Amino acid sequence: MRDMLGREDVITVEKALELIFNNLTPIFPSETKPGIEASYNRILSRDILSPEDLPQFSRSTVDGFAVNSSDTFGAAEGLPSYLNLGGEIFMGEKPSFGIKGGTTAKIPTGGMLPDGADAVVMIENTNRIDERLIEIMRPVAPMENVIRAGEDIKEGEMILKKGHCIRPQDVAALAGLGITEVFVYERPAVSIISTGDEIVSARSEIKPGQIRDMNSFNLAGLISEAGGIPIMRGIFRDEFGDIKNAARESLKDSAMVLIIGGSSVGTRDVTEAVIKALGEPGVLFHGVAIKPGKPMIGGIISNKPVFGLPGHPAAIPICFEQFVKPTLRRLTGISGKGFRDKKIIIKARMVKNIASSMGREDHIRVRLEERNNEIWAIPILGKSGLIKTLVEADGIVVIPLRKLGVEQGEIVEVRLF
Amino acid sequence: MRDMLGREDVITVEKALELIFNNLTPIFPSETKPGIEASYNRILSRDILSPEDLPQFSRSTVDGFAVNSSDTFGAAEGLPSYLNLGGEIFMGEKPSFGIKGGTTAKIPTGGMLPDGADAVVMIENTNRIDERLIEIMRPVAPMENVIRAGEDIKEGEMILKKGHCIRPQDVAALAGLGITEVFVYERPAVSIISTGDEIVSARSEIKPGQIRDMNSFNLAGLISEAGGIPIMRGIFRDEFGDIKNAARESLKDSAMVLIIGGSSVGTRDVTEAVIKALGEPGVLFHGVAIKPGKPMIGGIISNKPVFGLPGHPAAIPICFEQFVKPTLRRLTGISGKGFRDKKIIIKARMVKNIASSMGREDHIRVRLEERNNEIWAIPILGKSGLIKTLVEADGIVVIPLRKLGVEQGEIVEVRLF
Repeated sequence: MRDMLGREDVITVEKALELIFNNLTPIFPSETKPGIEASYNRILSRDILSPEDLPQFSRSTVDGFAVNSSDTFGAAEGLPSYLNLGGEIFMGEKPSFGIKGGTTAKIPTGGMLPDGADAVVMIENTNRIDERLIEIMRPVAPMENVIRAGEDIKEGEMILKKGHCIRPQDVAALAGLGITEVFVYERPAVSIISTGDEIVSARSEIKPGQIRDMNSFNLAGLISEAGGIPIMRGIFRDEFGDIKNAARESLKDSAMVLIIGGSSVGTRDVTEAVIKALGEPGVLFHGVAIKPGKPMIGGIISNKPVFGLPGHPAAIPICFEQFVKPTLRRLTGISGKGFRDKKIIIKARMVKNIASSMGREDHIRVRLEERNNEIWAIPILGKSGLIKTLVEADGIVVIPLRKLGVEQGEIVEVRLF
Repeated sequence: MRDMLGREDVITVEKALELIFNNLTPIFPSETKPGIEASYNRILSRDILSPEDLPQFSRSTVDGFAVNSSDTFGAAEGLPSYLNLGGEIFMGEKPSFGIKGGTTAKIPTGGMLPDGADAVVMIENTNRIDERLIEIMRPVAPMENVIRAGEDIKEGEMILKKGHCIRPQDVAALAGLGITEVFVYERPAVSIISTGDEIVSARSEIKPGQIRDMNSFNLAGLISEAGGIPIMRGIFRDEFGDIKNAARESLKDSAMVLIIGGSSVGTRDVTEAVIKALGEPGVLFHGVAIKPGKPMIGGIISNKPVFGLPGHPAAIPICFEQFVKPTLRRLTGISGKGFRDKKIIIKARMVKNIASSMGREDHIRVRLEERNNEIWAIPILGKSGLIKTLVEADGIVVIPLRKLGVEQGEIVEVRLF
């Protein structure tokens, strides 16, 4: 594909990602071993096998009477079985006695079965005749109302695999097994290089002609959300040497480098020249059929991804979601189904016709509004240089390459920011 | 509604939440003022008005020539206008000269318009005749290819409202305005009280009859994800006095208290008795038409929510999502549309028939699998006392109150963990 001015080939988003992935051999980050309380959302760097059975003893799942199930066979309301009460079992304690044929023991939910018992009759299906005699009005099968030793997790069983992203319930399982520290991957560091002779720090007073850096902050938040550690390298002048030095230094201690294009003449060429000068294979694509975000540059230097992002604020979250995030996720060591990498999607009706060009993915910022119990998407059509268009937006509607637009009233999927 | 044994009324999830919300007057947490780098995902405690215009000067959005638009009216390829080159404008600098009738200035994207200019002609629509003379081949309207001073954000304009949850692009806007610290609400503290004579700490060796605390860890992760600060108060014996003391102490420095029921006889009654004893209005409901999670208790003491959660591991994320999270979100100070509170939903086909009882919301744990380019949901039907059923699950399928089940092949929505 050629862009509007016929200046350069632009490729599809799909093809761009393919180029990155085909030229990247993910290197797993180094390991660290936090306590499980600090392990939420981290990626396991080793398989976890259970060191023991869970539970370590057979437990009752109901309040009732522990029995040898064969003593209850044939029991019915009209024809109960009678068992002698051998004692009571207390929570958290090993029973001090076993039961033999014809005896039973009172047991609470979670209590440990005594020797000789293989099932529990629910209290509702029993009657206490006197201090010593219990009437059983329903038979139980072996293991009925019981969680057997090791039934939840067996010693030696694989609980969680290397590459798994730890969720709250996974930490619960680790705690249950007495595993209180786990090996996880370090989060990949991502350097952010801001460029532009007119850009000054957010903490600066500004003079006429200057604007403060915004895009680094947007990227830093997105990198954190995606499981990386953002390193804001600072703001550099639009000079080949300055940007090249900043990128080379960044490559030493980062897994990925992002260069945000300034907006002066030829900046894009500077970023491209820097990526080309720093190593092999260098620039893999420059220009993608996406709006906003067309001037996107993707490259790899010594197996580390380096992206050049356009400086228009509205292009930042689009380019991040499409190119940077999928690449970054590969560097975290995560494996598996990837469902959790998706974003929250809200269905909404578009309030007006939106035109889009064939051969270009259009990413439309929208605001969501509830009207008459329906959710409507209101497009925000301001210039992509305006940060307010992002602040006002709740999410993005994507109009695919081969679609000419969206009609008023059409149901669209809004990917929330 | 009555439960299976006719012992107590159970109410719907909807009604349970209504009872909590109707008896709760959210008190906003206190404020803190982090740097914007640490403000992602925090809730603004004050409206933010812009202290200045953004940008502070009119900027070009293209590379080209700054002009007084009236000098270009009528220009065409066959009949160009000719303008004198008055100078060049550099990025980040205030132009040292203005332009008067018949002159123009070279300007880069992002450059500041000189006095006298109100539009920019794209470089593609110009020709440089010599050092002094520029040929203009297309007319521009006033403000064409320009972002005016204050066009993005105006001084005094409301940028972000109190109660807004700060996203990466919001931090970018704050940075652009030179706002480097913001007032946000403290995260509400949520105390977790684990009860049960058989429960020991995750860091303990276990004796026969004991199991380690798992549910506190699950809740702690869920509380963090929902914007609260979990405080694990420890494990308490199933004694009215012990649990009451723990709850009373917790109420002093927490916005909410969660008591995880042990599993011994009558535990549920202990939790209910504790909530009743601690203050008004006390217990609002005990028993909800949901599975797992039926024994759920909800109450309020002196305007602070106190929940009693069943001790079955599989009930924890269900009860959290249905009762605790919506209540907790009200205590964070968040306002607005709440779309970001939703979970990621994946559509999948159910691999087998699942029966469900009328009058009960069934929450089925499922694993997701891709087969022939379709995603299938495989129900995990183990006992709700098994933590492994949660570790193996990717999410939850809800069968509503009035639905009798799900058929094989039916498309269901899976709410990811």
